Amino acid sequence: MTIRVGIAGATGYTGVELVRLLAQHPEAEVVVAGTESYQGQHLAAVYPHLRERVDLVGREASPEALAGCDVVFTSLPHGLTMALAPAVLAAGGRLIDLGADFRLRDVTAYEQWYRKTHTAPDLMEEAVYGLPELYRERIRGARLVGNPGCYPTACALAAAPLLQAGVVETEGIIFDAKSGVSGAGRGVNLGVHFSEVNENFKAYNIAGTHRHTPEIEQTLSDLAGRPVVVSFTPHLVPMTRGILATGYFTLKAERTTEQLVDLFREFYAGEPFVRVRPAGELPTTKQVWGSNYCDIGLQVDPRTRRVLVISVIDNLVKGAAGQAIQNMNLLFGLPETTGLLNAGPVYP
Amino acid sequence: MTIRVGIAGATGYTGVELVRLLAQHPEAEVVVAGTESYQGQHLAAVYPHLRERVDLVGREASPEALAGCDVVFTSLPHGLTMALAPAVLAAGGRLIDLGADFRLRDVTAYEQWYRKTHTAPDLMEEAVYGLPELYRERIRGARLVGNPGCYPTACALAAAPLLQAGVVETEGIIFDAKSGVSGAGRGVNLGVHFSEVNENFKAYNIAGTHRHTPEIEQTLSDLAGRPVVVSFTPHLVPMTRGILATGYFTLKAERTTEQLVDLFREFYAGEPFVRVRPAGELPTTKQVWGSNYCDIGLQVDPRTRRVLVISVIDNLVKGAAGQAIQNMNLLFGLPETTGLLNAGPVYP
Amino acid sequence: MTIRVGIAGATGYTGVELVRLLAQHPEAEVVVAGTESYQGQHLAAVYPHLRERVDLVGREASPEALAGCDVVFTSLPHGLTMALAPAVLAAGGRLIDLGADFRLRDVTAYEQWYRKTHTAPDLMEEAVYGLPELYRERIRGARLVGNPGCYPTACALAAAPLLQAGVVETEGIIFDAKSGVSGAGRGVNLGVHFSEVNENFKAYNIAGTHRHTPEIEQTLSDLAGRPVVVSFTPHLVPMTRGILATGYFTLKAERTTEQLVDLFREFYAGEPFVRVRPAGELPTTKQVWGSNYCDIGLQVDPRTRRVLVISVIDNLVKGAAGQAIQNMNLLFGLPETTGLLNAGPVYP
Amino acid sequence: MTIRVGIAGATGYTGVELVRLLAQHPEAEVVVAGTESYQGQHLAAVYPHLRERVDLVGREASPEALAGCDVVFTSLPHGLTMALAPAVLAAGGRLIDLGADFRLRDVTAYEQWYRKTHTAPDLMEEAVYGLPELYRERIRGARLVGNPGCYPTACALAAAPLLQAGVVETEGIIFDAKSGVSGAGRGVNLGVHFSEVNENFKAYNIAGTHRHTPEIEQTLSDLAGRPVVVSFTPHLVPMTRGILATGYFTLKAERTTEQLVDLFREFYAGEPFVRVRPAGELPTTKQVWGSNYCDIGLQVDPRTRRVLVISVIDNLVKGAAGQAIQNMNLLFGLPETTGLLNAGPVYP
Repeated sequence: MTIRVGIAGATGYTGVELVRLLAQHPEAEVVVAGTESYQGQHLAAVYPHLRERVDLVGREASPEALAGCDVVFTSLPHGLTMALAPAVLAAGGRLIDLGADFRLRDVTAYEQWYRKTHTAPDLMEEAVYGLPELYRERIRGARLVGNPGCYPTACALAAAPLLQAGVVETEGIIFDAKSGVSGAGRGVNLGVHFSEVNENFKAYNIAGTHRHTPEIEQTLSDLAGRPVVVSFTPHLVPMTRGILATGYFTLKAERTTEQLVDLFREFYAGEPFVRVRPAGELPTTKQVWGSNYCDIGLQVDPRTRRVLVISVIDNLVKGAAGQAIQNMNLLFGLPETTGLLNAGPVYP
Repeated sequence: MTIRVGIAGATGYTGVELVRLLAQHPEAEVVVAGTESYQGQHLAAVYPHLRERVDLVGREASPEALAGCDVVFTSLPHGLTMALAPAVLAAGGRLIDLGADFRLRDVTAYEQWYRKTHTAPDLMEEAVYGLPELYRERIRGARLVGNPGCYPTACALAAAPLLQAGVVETEGIIFDAKSGVSGAGRGVNLGVHFSEVNENFKAYNIAGTHRHTPEIEQTLSDLAGRPVVVSFTPHLVPMTRGILATGYFTLKAERTTEQLVDLFREFYAGEPFVRVRPAGELPTTKQVWGSNYCDIGLQVDPRTRRVLVISVIDNLVKGAAGQAIQNMNLLFGLPETTGLLNAGPVYP
Repeated sequence: MTIRVGIAGATGYTGVELVRLLAQHPEAEVVVAGTESYQGQHLAAVYPHLRERVDLVGREASPEALAGCDVVFTSLPHGLTMALAPAVLAAGGRLIDLGADFRLRDVTAYEQWYRKTHTAPDLMEEAVYGLPELYRERIRGARLVGNPGCYPTACALAAAPLLQAGVVETEGIIFDAKSGVSGAGRGVNLGVHFSEVNENFKAYNIAGTHRHTPEIEQTLSDLAGRPVVVSFTPHLVPMTRGILATGYFTLKAERTTEQLVDLFREFYAGEPFVRVRPAGELPTTKQVWGSNYCDIGLQVDPRTRRVLVISVIDNLVKGAAGQAIQNMNLLFGLPETTGLLNAGPVYP
Repeated sequence: MTIRVGIAGATGYTGVELVRLLAQHPEAEVVVAGTESYQGQHLAAVYPHLRERVDLVGREASPEALAGCDVVFTSLPHGLTMALAPAVLAAGGRLIDLGADFRLRDVTAYEQWYRKTHTAPDLMEEAVYGLPELYRERIRGARLVGNPGCYPTACALAAAPLLQAGVVETEGIIFDAKSGVSGAGRGVNLGVHFSEVNENFKAYNIAGTHRHTPEIEQTLSDLAGRPVVVSFTPHLVPMTRGILATGYFTLKAERTTEQLVDLFREFYAGEPFVRVRPAGELPTTKQVWGSNYCDIGLQVDPRTRRVLVISVIDNLVKGAAGQAIQNMNLLFGLPETTGLLNAGPVYP
């Protein structure tokens, strides 16, 4: 059996990363490359790195076009997937949304943060949050997966062992996060102009205004068993790929770095895509470049009784397309790593 | 009168930035360009951007060579300036140390953080911390100035108005700071190899282990009037120049962003090198590139009752050579901006 | 006397670089900051690096607004300056065009390369090509200056001593040129998207199709005294500022590198902005970053009887705004370096 | 059968790229990871991107250690492989040298360009130059392969169809080439310091002085059937991976771009790793990033009767480790693409 895959939004950066990774997947084949801007064009003409690797022509991602797909990945501007989802599901397909329409469970929160009425609130309820390390069993049986945002993936994996073990306060958690530019997508605007980004570093959407905040809080609240409010501060790094999140947590009681490394190792034992670093070693973004890994390092600061957790991902892979394929593997009963161990990391 | 300037360590990045800036200074002239590695060579051969601008030959920065200088800037590895300082002062010169030997007032703290015995503890006591915005009057009368570190400059200026006004808690302060690579100096090692830094982002010396921590705490304690302990977390950005510090402070009572912007504007009124941004505008490192400015923006997060302060500097100018010249201007009764408004910022 | 300056196109990269440099100019003051996109806005709000340095509000660059200006710099899309120029000159102002409308003397060539009818052909004839090192005397008396393109500046200065001395063949000349991204301006499109440019290198408009080709050939033909055809190949470098041109010339007879360095030194003797490097030293773009210098190095290849000439400029300074101010200084009888030696090359 | 692989020089950039790629190779296994600097250390501790992917400990690459290997890759400083080769071959292993000891066939040329006596001149004669597209049949039967340099790979593939078809002059050929920094290896020196390379562009070893010159000429002379002398000019680009070569050739008779694209397509028909672009499309380095492809585009300049050929490779893959594995596949009768199609290109 080959999984027939449709992609709505195949010519954005996450879409074309899906294409790249699925070209190496032994059990899946892209049959619909949906695109708004490049209909009728070969993908390899739009993205020449795909020449002689991918033979796909962009077309409209209509419900009719997607009808024969076993699974549809949507990588669309907020609000479009909620309109498409009912038809895809009705036609018997599964849907993995790389946008934000099905990440939050709370309709009110969605409408408040995204300033948009949600037109498929019942599907929001049905949807499963696609972070395999935390919600694997629920994903296996899902029809509709909300693939996590890039920042929330890095933050949730950094926090999970601490919150589940109850070793840190749930108050005062901070994620100071830094991302490469590809996270902003392929659309052109002054904010991604090379001359404005290169040799420059900036913060943006700070002080609780970034839309990934409620998504992070939803997962952390699940882990803590009660509502958690976080400070989330994104920054833009002059590089293409990579997210590094610096998490600040207050320890309830004294712990050593080694004890907490052990805690993380137990929590993530058997996880194929989380690599916990030994005490004294901190991960850097390049060390996961092009791969589906999330690497985590941590260190206790006895002066302030905090533990700092550093997590890194490639925002286009574990933060988007790679994790979506990991979810697809779960949906179709495949080994979770299928097609995902070839590519990287590429260093330097 | 022309100020006769000696530089010990003229061929490192901060040294050569002193040379660049002093070449534009109408009241000063470099007469000794001290160097360990390039004695007998023209500076313009070592740094060709100086060709036809600077006519200096590197020589040993011995006490004899420096004897006729009105002021000596030292930019040397930790420990060397404390050996040189007594002779410079005895010869009637002033000394502005861009290293760490005279920044801390507490000998014990110095010896603990720098793992070195301080051989001039009485001079430590005499030395004035050269952050003009906070210690201007004391600097004017000083013989010996400890020029602040790059990170501490950005952090102290971000914190000062809040602490002096007493509007924030002194507990739980965090500085998540990000620096360009030139802060590590010109010495070669794997950590500054282009292929290791480019398209990469990392944290280093985290969890209270970086030597700038006690320096930041010294200034913040001065401002608060009692001991302050901070979390300071440095990161390395793939760019050459620039520091951005993200400061997290807990408000004692509710405040609006606008109220705090006003507070900062009053605090820094008349300061020629601090630019407080209007509410809603955050500074980026490139906007101070090549200049002696420290730009500051801030925003209140009502969800967590924190205020976030973003401060940016050019680490080689306001974080080193520019601030040292600002201090020199103070020492010699010149307008503080003399020679410092020409160069920048250069954008893009 | 203060020169009253108008800028049409003040919010593009070359326009804002004019603003930066003129803010340091002791004899000139910008009185009109013309802009299409930001009328009514403070320049410092559009470009925050100018905060507290420049107090200008963007407005329409109409003939009426520019009527009181002693000189007008135009940095506009091709074709707009030819419409504006007659009114500016009629009002008694001088005009320095940083665009391409008045660089070529041959109307037919202009219309062929720019695919546009020239509406002021008599002014084309009157205009002087503003490369001071080659056309200084004619510039002094001009009303209308066509400021050279960035690539042609680097190429012409690399070739001039060789062609004037007649030591190289006029056939087979090649300029393989490489530019930073700011040369493409501030307009947004996929070609300047950070994620498309970073960690990437490409050639574009090759094989005699770039519009700077006829401009280079015009100057080289002047120097050679007969028509010269060149191969000009531009490339895009993942950096913001800087052009490096690699010129290939065939020697008529054997020469040593030292002989040719001497030839260049004599040719450029007294030139304040051309620095000829000693034999064995090649310039790099960063060594002129932010400055008005053109640095030149060269080396003979005895195996092929070629001489290679490497010239570097900052495309926004010597390649645009700085050279325009150098021309303004000539027009108004000021020392040519006025206001242009402050900024320095900034390194690193 | 699994090919037992030894690597001498496994912790340099080309060595660790061999490790990365061989970890994905279904028919090969690294059994000796030779290293000078990291003996006794896990490779994954030296290069954390390899954590949980590679379980190898660095050791001395002595003849004894390598004795059981079916093939040995050497990536060593010039001169060391010639000492090691006889023992490897005597023990029955094949040897693929990624250094320069076995690329040239002419001992005199080697000794002149590398200033070193060659101690195994008979093996030089036996060695086959490992550019599969041109020497495939000879490689299949070889014991000893000299893997091409990165620049020569890009230049030879750009020139081959033209020279073999005899449509261009063999005189006056120029390769103006540009490389990312990783080509200089992992050794630390000022030339690879981030602050010296970033936002900088330079030429180096110009005018016929770079050691890749005789290697390029050897291949082109083979193709032309008579001695060819070229101008080869390398430049350093502020990026990590990638080479772009701009080749200038003079056409003997008029040809269109389309005709020459057809010529290239025929020449490279069936080649799995050469992608000839359609007329009007030029390749960029990022489009082959992380992959074993060489992409080629070309355009005729009718004004100068030249054809320009643009070729791009990833210097660490097709320019080193990937091509070496391609050669290994040939030596062992495997499909040439085995293990080489997974990884990329990765874009953006």
